[in-house]
Amino acid sequence: MDVREALYTTRAMRRVKPDPIPVDVQTRIMDAAVRAPSGGNTQNWRFLLVDDPEVKGKLGPIYRQAMSVLWATYYKDRIDAAHAAPDLEESKSMLRVQKSAQWLADNFEAVPLYLFGFTQHDPGGSSIYPALWSAQLAARAEGVGSALTQVLVFHNDEVFDILGVPTDDHWFMSGCVSLGYPTGKWGVAARQPAHDVTWRNQWGADPGFRDPEPLWP
Amino acid sequence: MDVREALYTTRAMRRVKPDPIPVDVQTRIMDAAVRAPSGGNTQNWRFLLVDDPEVKGKLGPIYRQAMSVLWATYYKDRIDAAHAAPDLEESKSMLRVQKSAQWLADNFEAVPLYLFGFTQHDPGGSSIYPALWSAQLAARAEGVGSALTQVLVFHNDEVFDILGVPTDDHWFMSGCVSLGYPTGKWGVAARQPAHDVTWRNQWGADPGFRDPEPLWP
Repeated sequence: MDVREALYTTRAMRRVKPDPIPVDVQTRIMDAAVRAPSGGNTQNWRFLLVDDPEVKGKLGPIYRQAMSVLWATYYKDRIDAAHAAPDLEESKSMLRVQKSAQWLADNFEAVPLYLFGFTQHDPGGSSIYPALWSAQLAARAEGVGSALTQVLVFHNDEVFDILGVPTDDHWFMSGCVSLGYPTGKWGVAARQPAHDVTWRNQWGADPGFRDPEPLWP
Repeated sequence: MDVREALYTTRAMRRVKPDPIPVDVQTRIMDAAVRAPSGGNTQNWRFLLVDDPEVKGKLGPIYRQAMSVLWATYYKDRIDAAHAAPDLEESKSMLRVQKSAQWLADNFEAVPLYLFGFTQHDPGGSSIYPALWSAQLAARAEGVGSALTQVLVFHNDEVFDILGVPTDDHWFMSGCVSLGYPTGKWGVAARQPAHDVTWRNQWGADPGFRDPEPLWP
């Protein structure tokens, strides 16, 4: 697959089939992930794949609990605003995200595979998110959909206990990527144009370009 | 370019030629970057391209100062250890990183382009590093080398002042990507194998796979 297709069509794909992901596919995903850069090339990372129904069964209720709290707190204002003005593009996007994220909560145990990323001494995340994003791009090339979620971080201690993560080694759970074969279609996600969020040499200054020709497809 | 080639050969490329990067190339890099996911699809990001010699001239001395402090503090133990046991693979890697990072410090003003990434309300970085990494992968496909550096974060206030970043809007400078046509060759970076840093279902448990066949080239 062309790198441009991967970069443009790897969007959050939370709705997936329960079909397992073959181990050789998982191996290729992880082999690509560890090629990502890390600060000083320290590779202070660990990855944990979860496909055991028993482990997923313990995590699911925690995920649902955390998600329901998020809707009622962190996301409340945006969801209320979206319901108040449902025709706005921003509102539609928020309600789409909510529906999709709630699907993942409701079907947590049916998702075939989760990939957890852990780092040491990397509070800013620059040494783990490139690797997780590489895993998602490599998964895309294999036809596997994915989405990064950090909801479980809110119940860090319980999750560490379930996964057996040592609590005295400064490991930090950076997030969790859900993985599975998508039920929907791949497509380019709508985004605010690059020229609206990019400046040149000074904050707020014109970047010197406008939207390019559509680059994909 | 195949996505796998991009994922495997996009390594830190700090040594670059002073040749400018055409604006249409920059446009394609930024258009790919904004396709990356962000939490709740909020796209709370801003990007700042710096190619003005005057602005680079103000940042260069700050970068060199910060780098020299890092060598003498944060990296001191690792560098001392590397000099004490220069034949270890880890030592060689550390000394290579140091040499390359010092090259960037010494030649800061000669690098044609810098891409700064800023986020709001994203202390963990999950909503900005995928976009910066996408920019690096898209740059790779254009033959442009890159490296993420966070050294300037240590002089946040001075850099905000130089770039005109508002200090009251909760913008956070996540890092800076150097960009330019490389003087060296592309290649696959050596990494600890995926099976050594990946576990399954429980921390420390066998992942159920070993190194795959070489996937690139």
